[in-house]
Formats: sequence, C-alpha cells, structure tokens
Amino acid sequence: MSGLPQQKLPVARPRGGGSRGWRDMPGGVTAAQGYLASGVAAGIKKDGPDLALVFSTHPSIACAVFTRNRVQAAPVLLSMQHLARSRGRVRAILLNSGCANACTGKRGMSDAACSARLAARELGVEPQEVLVASTGVIGTPLPMGKLELGIPNAVSLLRGDGGDAAARAIMTTDTRSKTAAVDGESRGKHFRIGGMVKGAGMIHPQMATMLSVITTDAKMPLHLMNKIFRRVVERTFNCLTVDGDTSTNDMVVLLSNGAAGAAVDAGLAAFFEQGLEHVCEELAKSVARDGEGATKYIEIRVRGARTFREGRQIAKAIAHSPLVKTAFYGEELNWGRILAAAGYSGVSFDPDRVVLRLCGIPIYRRGAGVDSSKTRAEQALKSHDIQIDLDLAQGTAQARVWTCDLSHDYVNINGSYIS
Amino acid sequence: MSGLPQQKLPVARPRGGGSRGWRDMPGGVTAAQGYLASGVAAGIKKDGPDLALVFSTHPSIACAVFTRNRVQAAPVLLSMQHLARSRGRVRAILLNSGCANACTGKRGMSDAACSARLAARELGVEPQEVLVASTGVIGTPLPMGKLELGIPNAVSLLRGDGGDAAARAIMTTDTRSKTAAVDGESRGKHFRIGGMVKGAGMIHPQMATMLSVITTDAKMPLHLMNKIFRRVVERTFNCLTVDGDTSTNDMVVLLSNGAAGAAVDAGLAAFFEQGLEHVCEELAKSVARDGEGATKYIEIRVRGARTFREGRQIAKAIAHSPLVKTAFYGEELNWGRILAAAGYSGVSFDPDRVVLRLCGIPIYRRGAGVDSSKTRAEQALKSHDIQIDLDLAQGTAQARVWTCDLSHDYVNINGSYIS
Repeated sequence: MSGLPQQKLPVARPRGGGSRGWRDMPGGVTAAQGYLASGVAAGIKKDGPDLALVFSTHPSIACAVFTRNRVQAAPVLLSMQHLARSRGRVRAILLNSGCANACTGKRGMSDAACSARLAARELGVEPQEVLVASTGVIGTPLPMGKLELGIPNAVSLLRGDGGDAAARAIMTTDTRSKTAAVDGESRGKHFRIGGMVKGAGMIHPQMATMLSVITTDAKMPLHLMNKIFRRVVERTFNCLTVDGDTSTNDMVVLLSNGAAGAAVDAGLAAFFEQGLEHVCEELAKSVARDGEGATKYIEIRVRGARTFREGRQIAKAIAHSPLVKTAFYGEELNWGRILAAAGYSGVSFDPDRVVLRLCGIPIYRRGAGVDSSKTRAEQALKSHDIQIDLDLAQGTAQARVWTCDLSHDYVNINGSYIS
Repeated sequence: MSGLPQQKLPVARPRGGGSRGWRDMPGGVTAAQGYLASGVAAGIKKDGPDLALVFSTHPSIACAVFTRNRVQAAPVLLSMQHLARSRGRVRAILLNSGCANACTGKRGMSDAACSARLAARELGVEPQEVLVASTGVIGTPLPMGKLELGIPNAVSLLRGDGGDAAARAIMTTDTRSKTAAVDGESRGKHFRIGGMVKGAGMIHPQMATMLSVITTDAKMPLHLMNKIFRRVVERTFNCLTVDGDTSTNDMVVLLSNGAAGAAVDAGLAAFFEQGLEHVCEELAKSVARDGEGATKYIEIRVRGARTFREGRQIAKAIAHSPLVKTAFYGEELNWGRILAAAGYSGVSFDPDRVVLRLCGIPIYRRGAGVDSSKTRAEQALKSHDIQIDLDLAQGTAQARVWTCDLSHDYVNINGSYIS
C-alpha cells in the first residue's frame, strides 16, 4: 500500500449560509479526508466502467445495512460475514455493476470471497477488511477471469479525487452518476461526509438501497455510529421507491476513519446526524429523480399521522400505485387514485377529515373534490417536480417518500433488460 | 312488477363429463331460474351501455363482501346499510359504469340512495331490497338526471336472457364482457349458479373484485350461504391482481332465490361450494386475462407452503412485481426477478431448497439456475398463457394467483384515463 497516493484534499472552510453548519461540496466518497477511490472497465458489462473500489488510507470502522430480501446475493452474505469477523474494522469496499452474483449457489459465494481476497492482497490488508457489493443481472456468475485483471487495475488507479469515477462504475440503467457530500464545522471541530449510490430499477430499499457507500473522516465509537446510521437510513433510503421491488443485493455501508482528527462525542452526535442525513437524503432523492424511465420526480408528504411509520406506510402505498404513477406520467388530474391508494395502505383514517394538496393546491377536502382548484392543479401537473401533501388530521407525525412516475420507458427498459 | 316477463329458461340436463357434477353453461346472471337482467345506455359514459339491473322474480336473500379500502364509495356504504336493514332480503342490484360515485361527500350518499329508491319504486319493492354498485372515475358525482330516465328504462327492459346485456353495461376499460355459469345435479337435486364481473384496472380485490354479481336458484339459509361465499371469495377473487390497486368500489354480491325448488342442506353444501367456486374462479381468471393492456395471462402456483395464506402472499408479491410483469411482456427469461419478489414477500423460506418452473420447465433449483433448460424456457415464454410454479418444500399447502403482464398499453390506458 505504501506506493499508493495519499489523499491530501484542501479542507475548505464553511462559507455563506450552509444550513445547520453543513455545506454541500463535490467529491462523493473521496470528499472526506483519508479516502481514495477508483472506477475501471473490467469487461463485466459490454462497455463502460464496471468495477469500483473505495479505500481508507487510515484504519477505519464500518457499519452496514443489508437487504431484508430472503434471497440474499453472495456479496451480501459474504460482507455480513466479513463485518462480523473483522468486528467492523473494514478498510475497503469493492463494488461491481453488470452482474449481481445472486442466485449463483456455492460458486457465487466462492467467487465473492475470491474477489475480496484479490483486493485485500493488492491493498495489503486482511480479506475480512474488504466488503464486496454487486449489482446487475441475477443468476449469472461473476466473470472471475476479468476480475483477476480488473482488481489490480482498480487498486493501481486509486486516487484522492476518484469519487466520481467510482460512482460512474456502479451505474446500471442509471442515466447519471449520483454523489453527495457535505463539509461541516461545530464547536471548532471540522468533519466531512460523502457518498455515492446507484439506483434506477428494482428500487424499494428495506434497510438499504441497491448499493451505496458513505465515507466520513469523523471519528466515533462503532456503537454510536451504528445507532445514528440506522436511524438515518430509516428516514432516507427507506423512504425511497421506484418500482416497489426490493433487490437481492441492497447494501449501504458507512465508513469512518477519523482522518479529520476530531471525534464525534455525545455533544456532537446530533450535529453529525444532521450532516449524514443530508447526504443520505440527497442520494435517495437522486435515485428517485433518475428512476428507470422517469419523466417526473414525485415527493409524497404525509402529515397529521399518528406515527412516522403509519405516515410512511400511506406515502409508500401512494408511491407504489401504478395507477397514481401512470396518471402523473400522463399529466392527468386523477386525484381519486391517490385517495384510493391511501385507503388500501392498511392505515386507518377518516376520509372526511383528510386534506389533499397537489403542488400546494388543495384538491380534496371534507370528503369531496375542490372544483375551484381544478384548472390550477391541472397546470401544476405539467411541472417536472410534483409534491403531494396529504394531511390526515389525526396526529403530529409526518413522513416523506420519494419516487417517480411510471412511463413507457420503464416498460421498454424492463421488457428488454437482458438482451 | 306484474307486467314484467317471467324467466322461463329450459332447465338443461347435465350431459357428458361435467367435472364433479357441474357443467358450464351460458347465460351469466340469468342462467339460474327466477332472474331477470338488463343493460341500457343511460348516457353516463360517452357511449355504450352503462346501467345494469339484476332482479330476482322470487323473494331472495343476498350476502356480499365489500372492499377493505378505508376510502369506501357511496354505493358501498349504502349497500352495506341496505343489507343490514333488510337482513339480507335483497331483490335487486343496480350497477353503473362510467362514474364510481366515490369521494363525492354527502351528495354521493344522497345520489346513491335516490338511485335505489327510483329502482325500488319501478320494481315494486322496498328501497332497502335494492343494492347499488358503481365503477368508473373517482371524484365525479352521478348524473342523476340521466339515471332518472335510465332506471325506468332498465326496469322495462328486464329479460330472462338479459345476463349478457347486463355484463356489457358494467364494462369500463374491459375489452370484453365477462360471465360464467354452471348447471349441476346431485342426489336428484338440480341447481344453477351464474355470475358476471367487470375487471380491467384498479384490480387487487381484498374481499371482492371491482363489481361482481352471482345468482343461484338454490335455496339455503343465509348463514350457510354467507359462510360458503366468504370461503370461496377468499380462494377466487382474492387470488386475483392486475395492478395491485384495491379499488374504493369493490363489491361482490351473491343472490339466492330458491327458484329451483331444491334446498342446499348440510349434505349438499360441499357440492354447492364446488359449483360456486368454479363460477367465481372462471370470473376471476377472465379478469386477469383481460387486465388493462394485458398481452399475457399468468397463473402463479406456489406449492409446499406452510399455509394457504403464506403461499398466496408469495404468489401475490410475484404477481405485483413490475419487473416480473414487464419481463413477461418483453418475453425475457429473467427468472431472478421471480425469486427476488418471492424473497421480499415477507414469508420466510430457504432459497436453496426452492424449485422454480416456468410452464413446467425447471429453471432454478438448489440455489442456482438450470442452464440446460434455458432454450426450452425461452421458447415457452412466447406462449400467451404462462404458468409459474414455485415449490417451497416446507409444507403441504398451495395457492394460485391469477394476473397479467405490464405492457405499454397499460401505461397508455392509465396515462389518459379521464381525457
């Protein structure tokens, strides 16, 4: 590892009106200090980069959340084992697109383990310090011959500004790469948090989205990091859906290496959590914006719910409804479908007390449509960004869910994914 | 009512190999003795018939199951009230397409009640002996002026062979009318059961499908009929999904008038249940075959489940998956999506013990794909009728779910439903 370039990004001072002391910045997973990344074309996909590596130059710890799907891909199972064996002492994450290495039996597990060993050897770390993640077609084995060449190449190309290259290498049907990063200062301590994600289809994360890596140069105990991370994932990635399909490969990993030289203690935990939530929320929203075939970005906000979970359950029922999604694609004011979806969500509420707004315009209240809003609401439907606000008037909790419409292109993309 | 024609259909003798003593026959809701029906164009839709009436010439009893959606349309609420007030003594069902009368507030309830009163007056029965059902756009009030002319017209056109006309009048985006009927004899007793249904979209019945009426000339106590009916609905209509959207207007009604002069006693209950299940299953399958934009009919069978409900839960997760549905539309052998959907269904199972077959061809077993089946399975995908068999190998229960693919036409139809 001694031959690898060290990351020496200048630490920017927060300027201007960064909300809550955090400011957006470029760089993705290499925005924080002490991280290197790369993205290379190993030939797993027909063309384009398909192998990404994220590496911490300092000793680092990781926590991760994995798919709740009962069918878990080999990289998910192996990364769980490595996290347990290393007790969270993780230094690197190897990710590939073009092949999910799921439903590949014993060969899949041995291929995943072999990939981690190859990366570990090149990086000079232990195999259990490397996590692996895959995305792509299910049921096809990893082309190990290509990885044997690709992995050393990815290690040799690791760079302190490689965050964007890594984000590009994990794309499948994504139309653009997705990164987010923030820079923050509180009580004289300075941290950065950055991340990348791949999205597009088979997106309905349950404890994680398809693949995402977040890095921070803050230092904190593993148990605190784990607690904060799970809370944030619940409010961000788990509020995202494209098609309601939870993948076999979902995985989101947070790496912390303390390279900023400042520790997140009890007094700074809330501050750190804000920054982490901002990064995760931006990444989740970017997945909804770039959902397969999406022509609209839709934010569904449920207010006046009894609990966050009930609010999210209703918002997700609306977000999953093919009738709601196709109506927005067709720019049709068919608000009855939104109420019908809320009604079958499994959460009880009184339809006569509910108020429904579309882009701020009230379209349903006191059990009936608001006729006078019709023209304005029809106009609002033509926007690219759609806000649906549903007030249940039965509590104080609220939830937001991010999704997209269902278009002809979704059918095109998924009717010919393999060929 | 004295001026209305009496139904005098010849009672056919069962011939040939009618399975289990039941034989298919035409006629829909007027196949059984003592029922009249009609379908007229009242002008609720732009064109075509849109108002149906089913009437029992004999005193009759009814049981019904209604949508579990929390947002229930006025006709659902009114029909529940009428069933309770009349203690099941129901004589007629008035159904309209073109307007769901849902989310229409107090006006909607008063319009539904007014429709029932108008029909009752013309038929010479009490208003609570009439149930009402509506389907169409949500949020628009019923055009009562048109119903005031249409209802007397529907009564005057009631006929003993009006089952097909009634089935045509409840269609929305359906491409064909849907009826089923059987004729059966057991222990010297002869009965008929017939029905009609409308389907197409917003189809994921939870206790009923969009609108369905079943009639029988068998005589039986209300509590027995109710028990049998709920069991049958659970195994038929509740195993059907087009798009996962449960409507605000779902309602399925079973009328029994004893016109056959034979009673269903404890010894004949199982026989009657077989016939009823056959009719309901045929109606449910016809809805799946004619799902909005459907190019494929898909039957998903889960075997080796611990319980029927667990089997159905897995089958429904597969049936709801937009990725599975678009892959079948594109005739792509992407079986990983079927396993992924089973995996997120919420039912636990061991992926390594599962066997997946497509149209009888094994494509996944022992945790990996069966490469040797690939060519044959790709060929089978070109059929119109697709069978998916998933054996969980962890119990003896099984479940079947009927659905269709997700096509460009589904997006076309639902992106421009109102306009």
